[in-house]
Amino acid sequence: MNDTAASVLPVFDDVLAAAARIAPHAHVTPVLRSRTLDAMAGCELHFKTEHLQRAGAFKFRGACNAIWSLDEATAARGVVTHSSGNHGAALALAARTRGVACHVVVPEGAVAAKLAAIEAHGATLHRCAPTIAAREARCAELQAELGAELVHPYTDPRVIAGQGTAALELLCSPERFDAVIVPVGGGGLAAGTALSVAARSPGTRLFLAEPSGAAETFASLQRGERVTDFTPDTVCDGLRGTLGAINFRMLRDHHAQVLTVDDAATIAAMRLFWQRTKQIVEPSSATVLAAVLANPALFAGQRVGVVLSGGNVDPDTLPTLFG
Amino acid sequence: MNDTAASVLPVFDDVLAAAARIAPHAHVTPVLRSRTLDAMAGCELHFKTEHLQRAGAFKFRGACNAIWSLDEATAARGVVTHSSGNHGAALALAARTRGVACHVVVPEGAVAAKLAAIEAHGATLHRCAPTIAAREARCAELQAELGAELVHPYTDPRVIAGQGTAALELLCSPERFDAVIVPVGGGGLAAGTALSVAARSPGTRLFLAEPSGAAETFASLQRGERVTDFTPDTVCDGLRGTLGAINFRMLRDHHAQVLTVDDAATIAAMRLFWQRTKQIVEPSSATVLAAVLANPALFAGQRVGVVLSGGNVDPDTLPTLFG
Repeated sequence: MNDTAASVLPVFDDVLAAAARIAPHAHVTPVLRSRTLDAMAGCELHFKTEHLQRAGAFKFRGACNAIWSLDEATAARGVVTHSSGNHGAALALAARTRGVACHVVVPEGAVAAKLAAIEAHGATLHRCAPTIAAREARCAELQAELGAELVHPYTDPRVIAGQGTAALELLCSPERFDAVIVPVGGGGLAAGTALSVAARSPGTRLFLAEPSGAAETFASLQRGERVTDFTPDTVCDGLRGTLGAINFRMLRDHHAQVLTVDDAATIAAMRLFWQRTKQIVEPSSATVLAAVLANPALFAGQRVGVVLSGGNVDPDTLPTLFG
Repeated sequence: MNDTAASVLPVFDDVLAAAARIAPHAHVTPVLRSRTLDAMAGCELHFKTEHLQRAGAFKFRGACNAIWSLDEATAARGVVTHSSGNHGAALALAARTRGVACHVVVPEGAVAAKLAAIEAHGATLHRCAPTIAAREARCAELQAELGAELVHPYTDPRVIAGQGTAALELLCSPERFDAVIVPVGGGGLAAGTALSVAARSPGTRLFLAEPSGAAETFASLQRGERVTDFTPDTVCDGLRGTLGAINFRMLRDHHAQVLTVDDAATIAAMRLFWQRTKQIVEPSSATVLAAVLANPALFAGQRVGVVLSGGNVDPDTLPTLFG
């Protein structure tokens, strides 16, 4: 899967259009507070609960915007993507809301439960060898064979605009946020959030939480050029992807600041969040709470918007995570 | 701890008074829906999310009502209870909302995390030998020494009236419920729910979910007399208590129907609920979903109110629960 669709930068108007387009299908997720976590963090935390989004992650927003942006002829030919994670399930469910055929290329060895979720939403699975080259080749084949439209998980401008609607909702608040923090992997959520923050609350600082075992966004923004040669080593399965080229440009131009967190802090934050709020978020989401708790001086006394990206955790992994 | 305070049966007006009394302190918890769970159950499930109540369980309602019912002189002497679980933490937090001293008698060997929660809410712990006799004796001593008021976890009429406010909120709905189901242990929630159902929606059937390893409520209602001689064997730590005498009378008079569920079904339901809603409820709460799923004919096509009693799960127990 390549970045060719990424040549046109999305703008804030695309986020507004996405919000209108997905409104009949996506949830406006609630904002959750916790007195105890506020006291521990020394600031006011406003959690945007995307783990309560349909299909269990913010990914549904971008997928839904992409699906409902298609013209009739393209929609009739279907969509294709490769993802063994939240984007695959989100695109499958979004496609179903419009009766669009959805093809998801998945590598051999992907987690059975995640594949079952994608199939349960009505998508067709296409297995391939577990390499990037094999996945991209299979995707290209399906595009050629079926005329299906590629919907990239994080470089597609329609996807980025859709992801921006989470922060758009969060910032619809009578009081101003001093900071907003979101996790960063491929950068779809981060880039979309940058659009909403810049347009709706330009004085609000944008922080990105990134696992220290996959901190190529941190390295890329520091060097001023995109780092792609790295091997991710983190429990945050949603944050192992490589920052997209378009995403890099948008985050660099916005002067987003990356906070890296190690997996132990992330797992401790996930556990703490669960104990205090009874909400299960996936490790990728817990990075944001871990980052805030690890940097008290950055946020002291402030009003902080925290986007919890998703809640898709395989119960079988918990003994390992918390063991 | 004896049942002497239980001689006066609470009535629905007490529930209404409790609702007004606790309103400044307790949350009106949201009602949660899930398309997937509705499809699996073959009925419409409306989950009353008491795991999101303060202190993580419905227990805060009854405790708060008891605390704010005290006259000034009694309040000045403080309250006492014995509980190593949710009632202890709930009473401690409720007492703190009024600046009332709270003494909690706990048996040696109780879970350290739960004791820490009780102390974190500002209560004083009093340790005793792990027998009912030792606990009651220590309670009686504290009552005598301090003039502290006993607040029994489920036979106190103020507690029962407070617990009834959860169903009162649930039944404030434009559409009628065909059935309401709550878990039953000592019977405080069950008896309070019976008051609200009888007054607000008398055609609604009341079901009680009870672990088959602690099914003395089932046995008691079947025999028409209270069974107290049993040894609980269940993972549902909130449902091991013995049905109170006052609670038995109220549930018998209401013709409540008990559905028993085994622990394996409860744990499967807890896991399913988590996966579909990202909410962690404790095993005692999951009994209600397990009971509905196990009895499809009873609820087919109906509108069912389901009270999720609490969410206080020790993360360290999960590997065992889900292992």
